[in-house]
Amino acid sequence: MSSNEKRFRISVDAMGGDFAPGEIVKGAIQAAREYDVEIILVGIKEELDKELSKHDIDGLPVTFVEATDRIIDGEQAAIAVMRKPNSSVALATRLVKEGKADAVISAGSTGAVMVSALQYLGPLPGIDRPIAGGPFLHFAPNTVVLDLGANVGCQPYQYVNFAVAGSVYVKCFMGIENPTVGLLNVGSEEGKGNDVSKEAYELLKKSGVNFIGNIEGMDIPAGKANVIVCDGFVGNILLKFAEGIGYAVSQWLKKELADRRPEEIDKITSKLRMMMSPATVLGGGPLWGVNGVVSVAHGNSKAEHVVGTVKQTILALESGFIDKLRSELENATEAINNKE
Amino acid sequence: MSSNEKRFRISVDAMGGDFAPGEIVKGAIQAAREYDVEIILVGIKEELDKELSKHDIDGLPVTFVEATDRIIDGEQAAIAVMRKPNSSVALATRLVKEGKADAVISAGSTGAVMVSALQYLGPLPGIDRPIAGGPFLHFAPNTVVLDLGANVGCQPYQYVNFAVAGSVYVKCFMGIENPTVGLLNVGSEEGKGNDVSKEAYELLKKSGVNFIGNIEGMDIPAGKANVIVCDGFVGNILLKFAEGIGYAVSQWLKKELADRRPEEIDKITSKLRMMMSPATVLGGGPLWGVNGVVSVAHGNSKAEHVVGTVKQTILALESGFIDKLRSELENATEAINNKE
Repeated sequence: MSSNEKRFRISVDAMGGDFAPGEIVKGAIQAAREYDVEIILVGIKEELDKELSKHDIDGLPVTFVEATDRIIDGEQAAIAVMRKPNSSVALATRLVKEGKADAVISAGSTGAVMVSALQYLGPLPGIDRPIAGGPFLHFAPNTVVLDLGANVGCQPYQYVNFAVAGSVYVKCFMGIENPTVGLLNVGSEEGKGNDVSKEAYELLKKSGVNFIGNIEGMDIPAGKANVIVCDGFVGNILLKFAEGIGYAVSQWLKKELADRRPEEIDKITSKLRMMMSPATVLGGGPLWGVNGVVSVAHGNSKAEHVVGTVKQTILALESGFIDKLRSELENATEAINNKE
Repeated sequence: MSSNEKRFRISVDAMGGDFAPGEIVKGAIQAAREYDVEIILVGIKEELDKELSKHDIDGLPVTFVEATDRIIDGEQAAIAVMRKPNSSVALATRLVKEGKADAVISAGSTGAVMVSALQYLGPLPGIDRPIAGGPFLHFAPNTVVLDLGANVGCQPYQYVNFAVAGSVYVKCFMGIENPTVGLLNVGSEEGKGNDVSKEAYELLKKSGVNFIGNIEGMDIPAGKANVIVCDGFVGNILLKFAEGIGYAVSQWLKKELADRRPEEIDKITSKLRMMMSPATVLGGGPLWGVNGVVSVAHGNSKAEHVVGTVKQTILALESGFIDKLRSELENATEAINNKE
């Protein structure tokens, strides 16, 4: 282990996710072994003890904080988090607020993570709701799309928030300077679309982001912009449509390639599914728009996805994602106000 | 040729389309040979004469009506159609109004076809703008999606029109009784989505169509409903996204299958592109919502697509598509009003 002045401390909701606590604990310990990071497991004592006994954590910076409760599948997120302040997700998030951890990771209900984050860390200035977004097609590896469903029925100014958040993400996580921003629309010319997209177009021009204008559906897999902004209603349908297409094409390919060896076919079709849905491969990403690093992992995360999420979380911390996001959101608001 | 009491007469805009008049004339003549149908070619005399001289039309029911003008690429559709009443598309459409043809086909600018149809035939009662829709994935061969871009920024009642139009289309063109209708949304439960989709949900319940509730993006390739209704803003982005995915996956497959023979790879990839975009295969379909059978073919139609469009047009005429559409639109309006 290197002797950093300060090692990042990441609290992990050990009880959240389809394969919790087993796979979460396993992945978190593996991450502590691979990266120079301190892991704080937050969970129910007996269950964690049992899992920890399976691993050799001698000398690893893995500690444990006891939660007395957990959020159950199907609970209404907002109510559950309020009623269970000592649930693993609430407690893990509170460690960040109290300065005892630098970031938090959960593979539990996204709703519960969001509510915990808003309650204990609060939103960044100018953000109403956390933004859901990220890379969503491997065909366009340098492109992120947002919002993907957290914000439905958006006002024009929210598109600017999406553009800024996406730009900061692409800079911090992909190392691309001056990322391009496209507005997803039904035609490439200015003046296309519905009322909201027309107004959003005007605001994006003024916002200071590197706005390249409208882009269309076929431009997403082509990666025509680094950041593609849309209403969460559209983004969510697209995301699920891409998943559905990935499945349909895979099934179709199995028939088309039936003369090949089964393991070859499996290799191609699972690669294709991965091309259509990078989120499941990368592990989790940050929740955008809350005042702290909160990483959401897929509900069906296995140990390797937890390791991937820890890696993304370290990237967020090292790159100063939240501070940059805060200051660029302010800059964009100023830029728009100055030009009005 | 059979001795029908009445042979359908189809006027064809011979000057519309990327490969007009050559491929249009060729396809129209081929259709007259294959189907029991009369073809009226509408176009500029010298050009048509030249094309007709290439074919043996002796004994075929192919006639000719002279247009003195045509719509040029890039013209503003509405203005162009007004200024050029003797353009091929305007004249071909007017033949339907005057009772000299039963239906019209054009591969020219969709805007110009729409404006001609509205000007000369008018909309069906309750329809503001013609609806764009049709099957759009071969993975779901018994599913149509509408609107695909003609209606952007819809009111809730328009979703009912889409549902009715789609249901009538599926009955007439696919022979499916009592087609199911799904509302494209960001979640399957009632109460999901934006304000418009919530209101549309309520209206669809009352409308008399076979409404099965909300469906999500992955349900489109799975063909979960026969008719999927959405705002043209969403439909258009999805349609183009599917095209883009088809291209991206094809390019990717070429690399994955590089050890195969080139012609085998070509066969698989062009089949895939076809699976993603049936419109280019079927040829054109009817414009939904105008008071007459108006079929729009893809701008890059070759002769075989014109033949396909003639076939679709005959199906529309034989099945009484327009009359059924008119009466079912009325029924839906009544059903909603009675329940309010």
